[in-house]
Amino acid sequence: MQTITVMLDSVPGERSYPIHIGEDILCQPELFLERLPQKRVAIISNTVVAPLYMERLRSALGRHNVVSLPIILPDGEEHKNLQTLNLIYDALLAHRCERGTSIIALGGGVVGDLTGFAAATYLRGVPFFQVPTTLLAQVDSSVGGKTGINHPLGKNMIGAFYQPRAVIVDTVTLDTLPDRELRAGIAEIIKYGLIRDPAFLEWLEKNIAGLVARDAEIMVEAIRRSCVNKAEVVEADERESGGRALLNLGHTFGHAIENGMGYGVWLHGEAVAAGTILAAELSQRMHLINSIDVERIRNLYAQAGLPCVAPNLGTAEYVRLMGLDKKVEGGKIRFVLLERMGKAVVRSDVPSNMLAATLAECTGNA
Amino acid sequence: MQTITVMLDSVPGERSYPIHIGEDILCQPELFLERLPQKRVAIISNTVVAPLYMERLRSALGRHNVVSLPIILPDGEEHKNLQTLNLIYDALLAHRCERGTSIIALGGGVVGDLTGFAAATYLRGVPFFQVPTTLLAQVDSSVGGKTGINHPLGKNMIGAFYQPRAVIVDTVTLDTLPDRELRAGIAEIIKYGLIRDPAFLEWLEKNIAGLVARDAEIMVEAIRRSCVNKAEVVEADERESGGRALLNLGHTFGHAIENGMGYGVWLHGEAVAAGTILAAELSQRMHLINSIDVERIRNLYAQAGLPCVAPNLGTAEYVRLMGLDKKVEGGKIRFVLLERMGKAVVRSDVPSNMLAATLAECTGNA
Repeated sequence: MQTITVMLDSVPGERSYPIHIGEDILCQPELFLERLPQKRVAIISNTVVAPLYMERLRSALGRHNVVSLPIILPDGEEHKNLQTLNLIYDALLAHRCERGTSIIALGGGVVGDLTGFAAATYLRGVPFFQVPTTLLAQVDSSVGGKTGINHPLGKNMIGAFYQPRAVIVDTVTLDTLPDRELRAGIAEIIKYGLIRDPAFLEWLEKNIAGLVARDAEIMVEAIRRSCVNKAEVVEADERESGGRALLNLGHTFGHAIENGMGYGVWLHGEAVAAGTILAAELSQRMHLINSIDVERIRNLYAQAGLPCVAPNLGTAEYVRLMGLDKKVEGGKIRFVLLERMGKAVVRSDVPSNMLAATLAECTGNA
Repeated sequence: MQTITVMLDSVPGERSYPIHIGEDILCQPELFLERLPQKRVAIISNTVVAPLYMERLRSALGRHNVVSLPIILPDGEEHKNLQTLNLIYDALLAHRCERGTSIIALGGGVVGDLTGFAAATYLRGVPFFQVPTTLLAQVDSSVGGKTGINHPLGKNMIGAFYQPRAVIVDTVTLDTLPDRELRAGIAEIIKYGLIRDPAFLEWLEKNIAGLVARDAEIMVEAIRRSCVNKAEVVEADERESGGRALLNLGHTFGHAIENGMGYGVWLHGEAVAAGTILAAELSQRMHLINSIDVERIRNLYAQAGLPCVAPNLGTAEYVRLMGLDKKVEGGKIRFVLLERMGKAVVRSDVPSNMLAATLAECTGNA
């Protein structure tokens, strides 16, 4: 087992927490125990993940006399909304969960985001743990405290910054993850290489085949390096007033793709892959990187089996959807672009005709 | 104008904020201006308050080129729920409010709590200002960062701790406040005297008639001393891990009354008044204060025109409703009791038969 510590204050304390990464660690409840104020937890999962891992986690906790309440949500991004959130509140209140009752998210990004937001807001905040079971959640969404839900007018528009007490990444859970979801997770892994870690980017180019083939050693190393990158970014800028925005490479386009196609049609990671290639194309037109760099990026995503061409939603529709982005400032869309391979930058000065040209030239046929 | 500073960090900084108290200060937009990141705000009010003060505030801001979006909610505690919250999100998103758009709550406690929670969660947090227009909001709910909504199973069950950037208390707004609501506010003013400020308690006993008669000088002094007390409590314990719980004197009973009677039937302050007298009766039975003290408390509330007898919901129903309280720990109800006049204490050791006797003897006829 490997452990990374996310230090949110300059001194270790309540606001620091561990990310444990290892095989079969779901069955090691001691990773939770010392951080539980009460021997009572609610475990929130969905109809796909619960049959696979809920009982394993509950019985491990039960051996230490921790009583657990299972709450099972419908599966899918389209359920990451106010109605599903309310199902969680209903269950927590019906069972009289208290301020000392911890809430554990057992599932992918949707479960983690919903659960984290419920934990942030139930009784104005209760202890929260992440047990991510998808690659995407393990390398990205479970670390850093972003929680929230979607709104018909945009993704993640409602939420809170709320840090977990611990993140437990059990790589065994990836055995049951469909290939398509595995690849979606790899999209976010590649992101860390592109925005801030050129050595990791090169390592990925060498090991992408092994990663896609689920080589255990390569997988753990990819998760570990992703979490280290994520932790460093979050430590430096917990609330996205600066550098944290760079994690959104490909996400402004990606969110427009997810929203425009209807939530759930494209997986988040797929939209980020196609969105990152659009961002790379835009970076080239802004004279930041060159066409060889763009090709290198496209190649890496292609080898990961991810979509390299964004859907043609029409330029006007893209601009409209991107205008809903949380990063918009004074009506200006702020783009995360690549200054060079392994270094991202936020730019608010993209000319609208350059954006239009990129969308016209680089999205799929209508 | 008087200004009290709430200092949430040991050094003044982003997390400190002023409470301005004065006459006609709604028209002094400079109190907002330096704290607005963008010259754009959304003002959230309700159908009762908006016709009285919305245009005054909007035109004052407009003179400084601040563009404002009015959002008008239905009036009443029964609307402090997820549906109304969603109306706010809808409006903010439809008008593309951004992370730099500030949100101003113009109204009483319901508007303030709803608006604060919307501000805490819209785009994971936007700047927030309180302009309380009821006495209760001015002396209590607008200060301290508690925000939230009700759930059918309990009051304020969903929410966040989220501090405003400034609180602007314009005493002119009390001119339009109905007497019943004014008295409800006085219930919370009396609370500060009872839990931590014996000198203020004596001052109130001398000045209660003037306060009820809306004497301007007495009113400002009562608001100022209440805000000072509230600020001190919140500074010492922002997230209610300790002393802040004392502010809930009468509230465990009070919330049960509000919930049991149906939200909106009893005003919050009315329920707190009757609830505080129950807490005083329980304190006497716990041998903390004596019957003369209880009489003194009852007298003060009576002079303020507040209900001194809680409704008879039945002992079992009270216990059930109080079991939903956020302060419940390990299934035990924690009561805020009076150790002596001017000093409250949290007790988890109230015998259930003593609670039952108090409820049987001190609530109204069935």
